[in-house]
Amino acid sequence: MTSAKKAPICVLGTGLIGGSLLRAAAAEGYDGWGYNRSAAGAQAARDDGFDVTEDLTAALQRAADSDALIVIAVPMPAVEHMLAAVATFAPHCVLTDVVSVKGPVVDAVRAHGLGDRYVGGHPMAGTAESGWAATDPGLFRDAVWAVGVDDGTHAEPWSRVVRLALDCGAVVVPVVAAAHDRAVARISHLPHVLAEALATAGAAGGALALGLAAGSFRDGTRVAGTAPDLVRAICEPNAAALLEVLDETLRVLAAARDSLRAEQSLTDLAEAGHDARKRYESATRWEITGVRPGDHNWLEDLRAAGERGGVLTRLG
Amino acid sequence: MTSAKKAPICVLGTGLIGGSLLRAAAAEGYDGWGYNRSAAGAQAARDDGFDVTEDLTAALQRAADSDALIVIAVPMPAVEHMLAAVATFAPHCVLTDVVSVKGPVVDAVRAHGLGDRYVGGHPMAGTAESGWAATDPGLFRDAVWAVGVDDGTHAEPWSRVVRLALDCGAVVVPVVAAAHDRAVARISHLPHVLAEALATAGAAGGALALGLAAGSFRDGTRVAGTAPDLVRAICEPNAAALLEVLDETLRVLAAARDSLRAEQSLTDLAEAGHDARKRYESATRWEITGVRPGDHNWLEDLRAAGERGGVLTRLG
Repeated sequence: MTSAKKAPICVLGTGLIGGSLLRAAAAEGYDGWGYNRSAAGAQAARDDGFDVTEDLTAALQRAADSDALIVIAVPMPAVEHMLAAVATFAPHCVLTDVVSVKGPVVDAVRAHGLGDRYVGGHPMAGTAESGWAATDPGLFRDAVWAVGVDDGTHAEPWSRVVRLALDCGAVVVPVVAAAHDRAVARISHLPHVLAEALATAGAAGGALALGLAAGSFRDGTRVAGTAPDLVRAICEPNAAALLEVLDETLRVLAAARDSLRAEQSLTDLAEAGHDARKRYESATRWEITGVRPGDHNWLEDLRAAGERGGVLTRLG
Repeated sequence: MTSAKKAPICVLGTGLIGGSLLRAAAAEGYDGWGYNRSAAGAQAARDDGFDVTEDLTAALQRAADSDALIVIAVPMPAVEHMLAAVATFAPHCVLTDVVSVKGPVVDAVRAHGLGDRYVGGHPMAGTAESGWAATDPGLFRDAVWAVGVDDGTHAEPWSRVVRLALDCGAVVVPVVAAAHDRAVARISHLPHVLAEALATAGAAGGALALGLAAGSFRDGTRVAGTAPDLVRAICEPNAAALLEVLDETLRVLAAARDSLRAEQSLTDLAEAGHDARKRYESATRWEITGVRPGDHNWLEDLRAAGERGGVLTRLG
């Protein structure tokens, strides 16, 4: 995708996303290393030939010495601890993250005085598995990677983060933190909530109901297989946006219930849902072109394009 | 699976389920033919070498002449019309169905005086597609096929229906109509309702949200791709059981919303959902043995076994 020399990367947290990122970048010729809190996780990465340490300070000092791009790849509850360490040991490095929510990360980054070199990120990829054993260098291939275009974003760090996402095989959706968080509440956090509720309803039917379950139940509950702590770490930091769409969905479901009770009809729900799914299936990515990082109004132009479904597939 | 001579089958409705059944049975050596209302659908089946007519009377007279097993494979709204024709032209044939709800079919069958030779069925298989073009003789392989064990079921027709299900590659869950309908409300009809609501919530986020959508949204909304009329034909006849579990699920979701609002916590929902999904993943089919159709208490014994997750894999 790019030909210029690639700066090294330092990945903090080598679980499913961070570990897959380290592997994907290494496969593209990046010099990279990582930190992992769990000794077993770090050892598993080392066994696969990756330079992953349990010494956070050492990983960050090396990042500071080599002007590495630091990627925070821990769940939201652990972000604060990472940022404190970055502010102490590598405050001048370019900084991004792959956390599932953006507003709280932006706030924490600014509170640590790291806002100038920070550009948020969120690759829309994953599985119900977690940990190094689940990592896959192809995880981001053809995935969408949200990259921040909030006010005050600087062109040079932004370009480095976008280049990393593109090199990992993703396309980039430019989006500000608040819009990102509202969108993922709808297409990532609500799916988790509904999957948990569906699984609960199925199991309440006992062995008979679970024995009769087929494809619709299997697919509809798949992400309920995700570890509860991880689901909470993903959804709870986005409580405000999730509450908004959860309230909206409760109203939709209550209206369907009322219509089913009064008229034995699910017409409105079935038609609206089918139209919506068809919109999703027919949505096509179009390429954003002609916007150069740092140009006049580049952030506004990228924001507007992202809102309309545009993606970046290369650096201009 | 079975070695005795197979009686012919007459399939009324050669869409996804009925057509796949005709193909699966033919592959197992059954003599079979079908009726389809749509001329285009019947022609498509004939083009593939299957004997499918638009003449319902002719199909049923042939069934009466050859003592065929009649399979009603139309959506619930069309069942009444099929039963009236069966009562007129082939009232002495063994009769089953593959409709997604059982209580209303049982009631209609009895109203037409056909209860003595009827055994209800419901193969738990399907896709979001429909029509002959979507048929697949392997659709029922390793699927679960619910077969009725309601009071008054006779051993001979029951055995013929079970044999057909087994020959199509399925395992059989013995279940009475009311228990079936409560179970499928949980694991088939609620998944449709939640998928429609999720698709609606995603599309309300516009191009940005749909563009960021990944696996959890794709899988969670898959069945919203089903034609709205078909979703209605599946869910609406089971309104009573669906209302019960929909009310239950609205309470679960409202409690999660309240907890998220008051304490920014999804703990209860995430843990209950995860436990439920693990129960589903670890559920194992065990084989019901030692119950012979017609023996003392055979219906009660099969019912109890089905409630505990047992399946029939052969005729005793």
